[in-house]
Amino acid sequence: MQLDTIDGFIIDLDGTVYRGATAIEGARDTLALIRSLGKRVVFLTNRGNYSRKMCQEKLKAMGIQAAEEEVILTSTVTAAYLRNADPDSKCWLLGDEGLREEMIDQGIRLATKPEEADWLVITLHEKLTYAELNSAFRAVRSGAKIIATNEDKTFPGDDGESIDVGGLISAITSTTGQEVSVVIGKPSAYMSDAALRSLGLPPERCLVIGDSLNSDIRLGKQAGIRTALVLTGSISRAEAEASELQPDFIWESIADLIALSALSPYSGRNEHVV
Amino acid sequence: MQLDTIDGFIIDLDGTVYRGATAIEGARDTLALIRSLGKRVVFLTNRGNYSRKMCQEKLKAMGIQAAEEEVILTSTVTAAYLRNADPDSKCWLLGDEGLREEMIDQGIRLATKPEEADWLVITLHEKLTYAELNSAFRAVRSGAKIIATNEDKTFPGDDGESIDVGGLISAITSTTGQEVSVVIGKPSAYMSDAALRSLGLPPERCLVIGDSLNSDIRLGKQAGIRTALVLTGSISRAEAEASELQPDFIWESIADLIALSALSPYSGRNEHVV
Repeated sequence: MQLDTIDGFIIDLDGTVYRGATAIEGARDTLALIRSLGKRVVFLTNRGNYSRKMCQEKLKAMGIQAAEEEVILTSTVTAAYLRNADPDSKCWLLGDEGLREEMIDQGIRLATKPEEADWLVITLHEKLTYAELNSAFRAVRSGAKIIATNEDKTFPGDDGESIDVGGLISAITSTTGQEVSVVIGKPSAYMSDAALRSLGLPPERCLVIGDSLNSDIRLGKQAGIRTALVLTGSISRAEAEASELQPDFIWESIADLIALSALSPYSGRNEHVV
Repeated sequence: MQLDTIDGFIIDLDGTVYRGATAIEGARDTLALIRSLGKRVVFLTNRGNYSRKMCQEKLKAMGIQAAEEEVILTSTVTAAYLRNADPDSKCWLLGDEGLREEMIDQGIRLATKPEEADWLVITLHEKLTYAELNSAFRAVRSGAKIIATNEDKTFPGDDGESIDVGGLISAITSTTGQEVSVVIGKPSAYMSDAALRSLGLPPERCLVIGDSLNSDIRLGKQAGIRTALVLTGSISRAEAEASELQPDFIWESIADLIALSALSPYSGRNEHVV
């Protein structure tokens, strides 16, 4: 890979930069290198249960700086979608506090009762209670359409693979008979458009780095962006090589970029600026 | 209906005897009448989240007496199934405290970690948390088979129609790719067999009274037991009459039995004993 052909990096978080509360080895140094080369960065995650502020703080605790506009969550893009597509609508939320923070921050109107909602916004909710699930069920039963930040079935949690928003969605759809109207998360064009807009770059000058074939690599393929799959998530090299969805590069981890940069025309410059 | 052709009543609870914490009007008097006529009774419910003790206490608070063997919950029958079909197995439970109480009471072995479970027993859980849902997901992901007390999608709660165990089942099956192995609840033969065994009567001498076409009426049809649908649950007369599943009788409520008894050969005797 020629690093000088890339001006912007679209980087996944869970399984790529960190797993649970722990940074992937070398992630901080890799980000420092990318910054030192003057490249642009956007962190693009299917998490909708954090606010951008919470995400910035988590990265900061790992020694990784990110401006607010460099963090794009599915909650961010979901709010933007609703603001454009249905500006007068009222929403009911099923998700962690971060979703509420992000929705209010973006000026989304919230319904005071489930029965009055036009939309149910649904994301991963690691503090879910039955009462909250039941309220979401009632919102949809009363006619609210479903917008999901993402459809992932599992995610790599601190203590192992964990059930994701996909399970909560199925609980609602199977009992109401309503389907999901909109899914915002990767690999959708909502997410790649948001990332490219934030970077201010054309797709051919960018690289997606992520651990999910179905989210990250598929997003890149669909948007004409090159892709690097890292093996620090839930996929093994054998699984990756057997897939019909072939990334441009397969790396052990995001830190492979450090070794690659040493081989690139940037290596001299790199030594000066790190 | 000739009351003298019936020796045993198989009576549903939610929507038939009570709704939430409130007794259906006339239910207590109807039960008193049935007792006074010397008929046998079994309460047969798809709830698996109560223990029989909890159920007896709830009925008692409404002025309705029931012996322990006259209450058959899906948790009761689930425990009996596991004891017979897989006696050495260890179970992980997803359900309210009543499920745990009933399982321990019936000598079912519980796994100490989700990953060690042979079975996930799943029932309605009105105090569900994400952590509990995630543990159930991990049990199934690690190979536990799924046994559901019932598959109902909704139930009539105190404050309106509420999401039932069907939603929790879908959350697990959709994220693990595993199907449910056994469903115990009505209309299954597990439930009708348990009821008839408890009554000690042949099916043709019994009557099922319930508010659900799909649970109660179907159970009766499949087991050769006559059926009376009550309209105090979630079904209207028009819906009942339009259904392909025709009960033998459609009653406004369980209390219709009082008026019917006045027309029956028992009416004289009834006047003496009530």
